[in-house]
Amino acid sequence: MTDLTILGQQAKVAARTLSIATTAQKNQALNAIIQSLNTYESEILAANQKDIATAKENGISDPMIDRLLLTSERLKAMQADIQTIIDLNDPIGSMDKVWVNEDNLSIGKQRVPLGVVGIIYESRPNVTTDAACLCFKSGNAIILRGGKEALHSNKALVNAMQSALVANSFKKETIQLIEDTSRETAREFMQLNDYLDVLIPRGGANLIQTVVKTASVPIIETGTGNCHVYVDSEAQIQMAIDIVVNGKCQRPSVCNAIETVIVHEEIAANFLPQLEEALAPHKVELRADQAAKKYLTHAKDATEEDFATEFLDLILAVKTVSSLDDAMIHIDQYSTRHSEVIITDNYFTSQRFVKEVDAAAVYINASSRFTDGSVFGFGGEIGISTQKLHARGPMGLNELTSIKYVILGTGQTR
Amino acid sequence: MTDLTILGQQAKVAARTLSIATTAQKNQALNAIIQSLNTYESEILAANQKDIATAKENGISDPMIDRLLLTSERLKAMQADIQTIIDLNDPIGSMDKVWVNEDNLSIGKQRVPLGVVGIIYESRPNVTTDAACLCFKSGNAIILRGGKEALHSNKALVNAMQSALVANSFKKETIQLIEDTSRETAREFMQLNDYLDVLIPRGGANLIQTVVKTASVPIIETGTGNCHVYVDSEAQIQMAIDIVVNGKCQRPSVCNAIETVIVHEEIAANFLPQLEEALAPHKVELRADQAAKKYLTHAKDATEEDFATEFLDLILAVKTVSSLDDAMIHIDQYSTRHSEVIITDNYFTSQRFVKEVDAAAVYINASSRFTDGSVFGFGGEIGISTQKLHARGPMGLNELTSIKYVILGTGQTR
Repeated sequence: MTDLTILGQQAKVAARTLSIATTAQKNQALNAIIQSLNTYESEILAANQKDIATAKENGISDPMIDRLLLTSERLKAMQADIQTIIDLNDPIGSMDKVWVNEDNLSIGKQRVPLGVVGIIYESRPNVTTDAACLCFKSGNAIILRGGKEALHSNKALVNAMQSALVANSFKKETIQLIEDTSRETAREFMQLNDYLDVLIPRGGANLIQTVVKTASVPIIETGTGNCHVYVDSEAQIQMAIDIVVNGKCQRPSVCNAIETVIVHEEIAANFLPQLEEALAPHKVELRADQAAKKYLTHAKDATEEDFATEFLDLILAVKTVSSLDDAMIHIDQYSTRHSEVIITDNYFTSQRFVKEVDAAAVYINASSRFTDGSVFGFGGEIGISTQKLHARGPMGLNELTSIKYVILGTGQTR
Repeated sequence: MTDLTILGQQAKVAARTLSIATTAQKNQALNAIIQSLNTYESEILAANQKDIATAKENGISDPMIDRLLLTSERLKAMQADIQTIIDLNDPIGSMDKVWVNEDNLSIGKQRVPLGVVGIIYESRPNVTTDAACLCFKSGNAIILRGGKEALHSNKALVNAMQSALVANSFKKETIQLIEDTSRETAREFMQLNDYLDVLIPRGGANLIQTVVKTASVPIIETGTGNCHVYVDSEAQIQMAIDIVVNGKCQRPSVCNAIETVIVHEEIAANFLPQLEEALAPHKVELRADQAAKKYLTHAKDATEEDFATEFLDLILAVKTVSSLDDAMIHIDQYSTRHSEVIITDNYFTSQRFVKEVDAAAVYINASSRFTDGSVFGFGGEIGISTQKLHARGPMGLNELTSIKYVILGTGQTR
């Protein structure tokens, strides 16, 4: 029996206790976790400094080190996120609907926890508390497998959370960390079918593809976003510029950033020079097709690969089309089905775009940057699903639940 | 490029057309499929006779041959099932909810098709029309991979459906059959990630386990049902007998049949002799633990394996417990989390059972045989999910859909 099997068994037992806890009991434990992060602050920051020192020794890039870094302020932000989770409605036990069938059975569709949730993620330690507390509130035990760069930080964070759990009569194994960060153990984790109800990978495209190919447990694919803005011939120029600049520049490294702007040829001559001017202060590199290059001063040639790439950087591809249909064909070919935007004043054009574009989020006249659990009102998210099964788009507490049919009879047989 | 890749590409193209069809267009095509099954009746029955002849040559058992057999009456029943699908509400395009967030964005959660659904199943040809028409109504293209025993029947049925599709301006590839029934092709089908949005296996435990282990596409596990009735100390004896007899005898080969009765020791002396008498005319073999055997005349010894087995036959395991907790521990250990029943007059006992037993359907004082899409009011089902992700319990049209967020803005940026 391997260690992971033991972790899995313990998680299942812990999940059973958690599944019948009241909302008040769960919120009390979450409050205790907030306190515990204060109590253990010096241990957590010291552990994080170990990770930072190792990362610097290994020549990890500055942006990566920044993602890894914990400070007193960042801990406070993590605590504030847990407070938000406390304030969310607990979905468990509520009935989506109840009806009476022709056998006079009362049939209720009740929200229940998934059971045991696995998360595989990379270096950001705030994912550790965020994922654990979202799962806890929704009644799920969690097994975390973070990146090896953040191992000491994650151990300290999980230790702080576990001590709060135990003090509140929950099992310590409600939140567990896999401390062996080898690839073999990761593979075993992805095939822990007897214990994991779902596995959610959070991270770059490579991580996610590995999980998709290796996992035999049910997974939810998250994250990669090759997102487009289509500027229709009937778009308002200034609105289109504002939305493209926001989608590209406000936070280029995130999955809901814009990677390609598609321009209707009738508006290109007017729109593109103004767009280039607006993007110039942000130092955005443009990679454009031939038709678009005519109206741009500093654009490079766009390749097929550019259109297929999630740059996650200050690079924007520009494609010209002669119709809505051509725009949608381009999107269908290259989109990762995350978030897609149309800018138009035309009612029929907007309705066709909404109906025919296949993506988790489809926007009319708004920035793709809004695809986010907090913005949507879910009070946080454990990831953004780009698959169609179970959950699509930002996943909040509801997406961490399943259902059970509860049937009340009076002796009925068939 | 393999044939399956071509099938997948064609299915994706067909799905796109289908996804924007109106409900009226879809219902018209489904009506045409009903007519077409009349038009092609002699071809279908002749093809089925070929399959039956081969099955007899290969010494297939009589019950299996009966499952494979098509008759004029059975075709009529299949047509009636399609009529039921026509009468169902089309979920596509409806909004589960619409809200306005603090950025004044209107956010709607809209039902959309999954896209391309794959089904792997065994010998019953009625699954071919049923699965295809449920997928069609919910806007999904389907790729069918039936058992090799039913190949001629399935080809004839798909041919009849395709001719109706084409006559109604839908692409023939909306419904496709994999004619190569080799294991290699099945394995390739389970890994057709670029084209399949979900794969649903329907059949015995072996088939389902193979798919779980082999598939890299998202799957929904269906079917296996090791279901229990717990007869509490406060049960009504006659109600308990009726429900156990119904659950065991009405159709022993189905997944919602009862495999084990768990009896509270305080009621065993009274209940078990009466149960044995009621089961005797049905020739049910009893396999009981020592405590239960005292009250039974013809019971064999139950082994651990008996408690873990889905008999799908006129065999019933009997387990004695001294408390509700022990009953739930037994269920937790052996249940496949399909359907679980308690018989009790006690309110608190019933509520604990409902809350703590983890299964797709939990019954108080009613037969497990009701776990069925038609009984639940879904107008049919494409299978009964025993996993927690995406769908749990009977899967109707709604479970064949995903969602898309539609966001209406007025130029908002973040």
